[in-house]
Amino acid sequence: MKKIINDPDQVVQDMVNGYIAAYPEKVRLIPNTLVLARKEAPIKGKVGLVSGGGSGHEPAHAGYVGKGMLDAAVAGEVFTSPTPDQVLEAIKAVDGGEGVFLIIKNYTGDVLNFEMAAEMAEAEGIQVEKVIVNDDVAVEDSSFTTGRRGIAGTVLVHKIAGAKAESGGSLKEIKQVADKVVANVRSMGMALTSCTVPAAGKPSFTLKEDEMEIGIGIHGEPGIERKPITSADEIATELTNRILEDIEISKGNNIAVMINGLGATPEMELYIVNEKVQGILHDNGIHVYRTFVGEYMTSLEMAGISITLLKLDDELKTLLDAGSEAPAFRS
Amino acid sequence: MKKIINDPDQVVQDMVNGYIAAYPEKVRLIPNTLVLARKEAPIKGKVGLVSGGGSGHEPAHAGYVGKGMLDAAVAGEVFTSPTPDQVLEAIKAVDGGEGVFLIIKNYTGDVLNFEMAAEMAEAEGIQVEKVIVNDDVAVEDSSFTTGRRGIAGTVLVHKIAGAKAESGGSLKEIKQVADKVVANVRSMGMALTSCTVPAAGKPSFTLKEDEMEIGIGIHGEPGIERKPITSADEIATELTNRILEDIEISKGNNIAVMINGLGATPEMELYIVNEKVQGILHDNGIHVYRTFVGEYMTSLEMAGISITLLKLDDELKTLLDAGSEAPAFRS
Repeated sequence: MKKIINDPDQVVQDMVNGYIAAYPEKVRLIPNTLVLARKEAPIKGKVGLVSGGGSGHEPAHAGYVGKGMLDAAVAGEVFTSPTPDQVLEAIKAVDGGEGVFLIIKNYTGDVLNFEMAAEMAEAEGIQVEKVIVNDDVAVEDSSFTTGRRGIAGTVLVHKIAGAKAESGGSLKEIKQVADKVVANVRSMGMALTSCTVPAAGKPSFTLKEDEMEIGIGIHGEPGIERKPITSADEIATELTNRILEDIEISKGNNIAVMINGLGATPEMELYIVNEKVQGILHDNGIHVYRTFVGEYMTSLEMAGISITLLKLDDELKTLLDAGSEAPAFRS
Repeated sequence: MKKIINDPDQVVQDMVNGYIAAYPEKVRLIPNTLVLARKEAPIKGKVGLVSGGGSGHEPAHAGYVGKGMLDAAVAGEVFTSPTPDQVLEAIKAVDGGEGVFLIIKNYTGDVLNFEMAAEMAEAEGIQVEKVIVNDDVAVEDSSFTTGRRGIAGTVLVHKIAGAKAESGGSLKEIKQVADKVVANVRSMGMALTSCTVPAAGKPSFTLKEDEMEIGIGIHGEPGIERKPITSADEIATELTNRILEDIEISKGNNIAVMINGLGATPEMELYIVNEKVQGILHDNGIHVYRTFVGEYMTSLEMAGISITLLKLDDELKTLLDAGSEAPAFRS
């Protein structure tokens, strides 16, 4: 295992410490937890936004804590859901009296633990609402999921729900707009290589030297098909068409595009994919309102990409464009 | 070779096309070149800033084109200097009458070609000044360099010189502040793995499964030492101490820190390194004014990091904090 770490069992704690050390003016660590919260939280009169999940997907989710996006992120161990206790600490840390909204990626562990935390918080008198993100069109059920998985589209939920909360939206209004994003966002990924969980010490799976996997999950869960590597244009076409078959995006519609690197993919390759994706959308008469290219939701050092499309209306455009001071999503 | 590309000989052209497709409102391609320029360039009354170099270091340099940073970036083939003709096209595209400032990483090819372009531009009546960035403390001369190499510290030169230009600084004033950054910035890197130039089709070099290279360059040029992989704390200590031996940073000084990923390093590991670096600086009584963690100057899919320290005075602090709308450096 080639990694720049200290103790494989301490990587999340070390990372969280290093994160606080990088942005001491923006975030604070809730004592005795792996919860990172906005320095100024709880903010009176503002709904608190909490997300999180297993670590290994950085910059998700701590990188999205900041004005205009999340109020707190809960870091589980690598590829492991945080416990309900930890999520509860996050909820309590950001409740400014208007309730707390949870953004959950659809993995069985995350859903159970976040929902249990929500019940515990409600028992303490905190109002909680939630959205479950399930943007991955690749497979209906998988190793860790009933229903579709939540992947990079989650970041756009953070952005838009975060903007709504920052503008003074109520818990109900945030829920409505987050539901709208989830209804209109779709993603799909592929990988060339596996990744290695530090505590495991060896790759999660193996692909042959000429092989890729289409539809893979962000923990290396099996996808649709293993096959010989094709060209960037063919990969972009396969993923984009699969998404377009799943959601009605008509001629003249406005969308946001995210080309996401899974960890070890050179940025050069993301832009090569972007050219083809934009070409396909253009040929379909679809108007691209905003494009995001970079590492937004990774899988440690996996080489691969995901493509996300989000259909926009005027409300979503405005919220997508609103300011964000989160380190991993400045706008 | 596992890459998401089309034709290995077309990766730079395809990437540039994909970049324009991502940010059509911010950048334009100078026809028949690989030069990306700010949409609004040339800007009358503002000094134009140009940088560039071989491709494969993304987001450098195109990602730094935008208000508050560069006016144009010239993309060479992978790890290959752009030709003087291309650099000249960039200079001509951004000259708004107040002259053009070139930011050059210290590689023999880049220096020769940018200087030749400067002479050609001056023959056409455009005033040109330049700075050569040589922040890498690892080795004095190397495969492609006389003197020290220019690496991630270059991005801080872009930022600060860019802010000076945006605020109306003259060519002379920009030269002064860029020289000040170069005098006060130092970097050093290390790698766990090699990278593969697409047209070569195989790794540039090999490291054993338990081996790392200290002091390596961003094209895989040999460094100081190959040795067994040590812990993140030991790596952070070795690089930071080497930098601190090279530049006088005293108790109470303010600095900026950049923890840069070389391409395939999980962000988690960058934060683990950051914790130790900040600890060392704290123990030395050095005040960290700003920290940047992410991929700023990469080497395709190389796994590894570099650490950059920049000693700041009040002028540099103000310019570092000024707004930037470049996609890869939003502030």
